[in-house]
Parts: sequence; C-alpha cells; structure tokens
Amino acid sequence: MDEITTRHNEKMRRIKAARDEMMKTKTEEKGLIMVHTGAGKGKSSAGFGMIMRCIAHGMPCAVVQFIKGNWETGEKTFLRERFSEECRFFVSGEGFTWETQDRERDVAAAQNGWKIAQEQILDPEIQFVLLDEINIALRYDYLDIDEVVDFLLTQKPRMTHVCLTGRNAKPELIEAADLVTEMTLLKHPFRDGVKAQKGVEF
Amino acid sequence: MDEITTRHNEKMRRIKAARDEMMKTKTEEKGLIMVHTGAGKGKSSAGFGMIMRCIAHGMPCAVVQFIKGNWETGEKTFLRERFSEECRFFVSGEGFTWETQDRERDVAAAQNGWKIAQEQILDPEIQFVLLDEINIALRYDYLDIDEVVDFLLTQKPRMTHVCLTGRNAKPELIEAADLVTEMTLLKHPFRDGVKAQKGVEF
Repeated sequence: MDEITTRHNEKMRRIKAARDEMMKTKTEEKGLIMVHTGAGKGKSSAGFGMIMRCIAHGMPCAVVQFIKGNWETGEKTFLRERFSEECRFFVSGEGFTWETQDRERDVAAAQNGWKIAQEQILDPEIQFVLLDEINIALRYDYLDIDEVVDFLLTQKPRMTHVCLTGRNAKPELIEAADLVTEMTLLKHPFRDGVKAQKGVEF
Repeated sequence: MDEITTRHNEKMRRIKAARDEMMKTKTEEKGLIMVHTGAGKGKSSAGFGMIMRCIAHGMPCAVVQFIKGNWETGEKTFLRERFSEECRFFVSGEGFTWETQDRERDVAAAQNGWKIAQEQILDPEIQFVLLDEINIALRYDYLDIDEVVDFLLTQKPRMTHVCLTGRNAKPELIEAADLVTEMTLLKHPFRDGVKAQKGVEF
C-alpha cells in the first residue's frame, strides 16, 4: 500500500470508530414530525421518496395533497394505480390556488384535507403520513396553525411519522418539529426559459 | 363575498396573470444536470421521488448508487423487486467507506460505478439517471471531477436528465449543473438520541 492509501485507511478507521461510538447513543425510536420547506426543489419529491421506502418496508402509509388538485402528477398516478393497498392517496383541493381564485372554496378544500389528515394520523394502521403542500394552506390561513401544531403534539400516536411539506413553513411548525430541512435554491433552469418537465417536476 | 375574500381573490388573479405570462417564456425542454447537496436530509429521497415520477410516466430510468453497498435500503428492495423492467438499479460499492476502510477497493468500486453510469447515460433508451451519493466519491477523489463534468457537458444526450446527489458537491459540478438544490439542516432528531429509522432514513 502506498502512503496516501495508508493514511486514508487510518483516517477512515478513526471516522468509523467515532461514528460507532456516536451511534451507540442513538437508541430511541419514535414517530417524527418532519418539515420540508424553503424555496428550493425536492420538498415533495423527498416526501415521495420516503413513501417509496415505507411501501418497500411494508409500512402502511397515506398521502394528503393540499392545494394541488386537478394537476395530474406522476406520484398520484403511480400511487393510485399501483399501490392503492399500500398507500392511501387523498387530494384536498381542486388545483393550485391561482387556478381556482376562490378563497372560500380553497378554505373548504383545505379544511376537508385537514379532516382527512387527522383521520389518517389517528388510524393505528397507518405508520407514515405525508401532508404534501400543507404549508401553503397554513400560510394563507386556510388552516389554523395553532390547531395543526396542537394536534400533532398531543394527538399523533407516538410511533407515527408525519411529514409536512411546502415553502414558508410557519415558525410555530418549525418549533414543534423534530426534523426540519430547508431546500435552498442555488440554481434553477426556469431562469433560462426551461419549462417544468415530466419526471422532474411532476 | 366578504372583503377579505374579495381582496384575496383579486390578489390571486394578479398572481395567476403574472404566472401565466411568465410561463409563456418557459418553452424549452432539455435534459437537466441536477445536483442535490448540503448537510440536510432529502438529497437521495428527492432523487428517488423523481424516479417514482419517471416510472409513472413510462420513462425508462437507471440508478447507480455509489458507496452505499451492502446497506439494505428500502429504495433498493423496492426498485429491484418491483420495477426491474422500468428502472435499472446498480450498486458500485460494498458499503459505506467507513465500513470497508480500504481506499483501493473504494476507488475501484467508484470507478466501476462511473463506468456503469456513463453506459446508462449514453444509452438512448434511458431518460433519467440518478447517480446517488456520487458526490462522496468525487469528494475523496475516487473519481476525477474534471472527467465527470466533461462527460456530462459533452457526452450526455441532450434530452437525458441526470441527478447527482451527496453532500459537499464540488464547485466544478455546481458550475456545470442546470439546477442545484442545497438541503440545509435546520433541526435533526439525532441530536436527541433518536436513531435512523426505516421508512425515513432507509
């Protein structure tokens, strides 16, 4: 072995030892409140990546999509057509807010979505619930943030994971969450006239 | 309609008009070089969320996982067992670097992964390629960044999407990419002794 290799292997051994030691302290299992926010991409995609993992592990799960209603997304087709047993899929709204332009209808749709979300979270069968784009409904006060946070903190079964996505997550939600990731946009092709493309954005 | 609703609807109409105008300029379709980096969660999950969309749209796709080898992930099980026709799945390495502790073997594994990656990207059948955790291999110089960037910029078929994940993306890759998202950690339950859990982390 040359010197670079020897040094590298030694460094990796030290990293592994430190990591093994650290992992010994990570023993708790509990359902997490997760938030994906920020102006970057990947908030919903990462939620659906976790849904894929849940299906793989045989963990019954549910999706409630807020706002995005009549938009035909790949994830909706995929989950409804192929995994309706493993993953329940609900849509609260009737299209993006700027498509419907009717606040009363949007409020009613969001409230309906939240009612379904509560049922799914409380259902002892369900181990993971994705509340996709709920932050948009919270931002416009279609849903009451205090009610949502209170429900998550006091009613969510201990082992159930809930993932809430959408930009502009409210501070109250970030405060209540166990795990928060901000997706930050460093570069986006929309700026250069590239349109939303299937497989990538929907 | 009350005043809040009227004002809200008017505001939403203006947003929609501005958005419609903006979307008219977004006409180009092209294969994107996408990067998910940062210390936050969701880099790989968002990649697998896009793989789900590709399968839904009937777009043949491929995954090459770098570094993570003998780790039994949900995504690997899911895609190999259920979607081997729709998505080709390759693993370059034999476990995390800190598990193998052998630089020469890690280099060989990464080089092998990159060879497979190039074949998949060049394959006219394949429309989307996920190079999961390749940034780790680039960071440790198991792969040459100039070679990878040069290949992506000059050899990638115009309509093929490639998504590269992993923390510490090199500046050369960020420069070459069309779309870069940084996943930033705002809060993580590891800090409170919670371990990696199925469905969430793997």
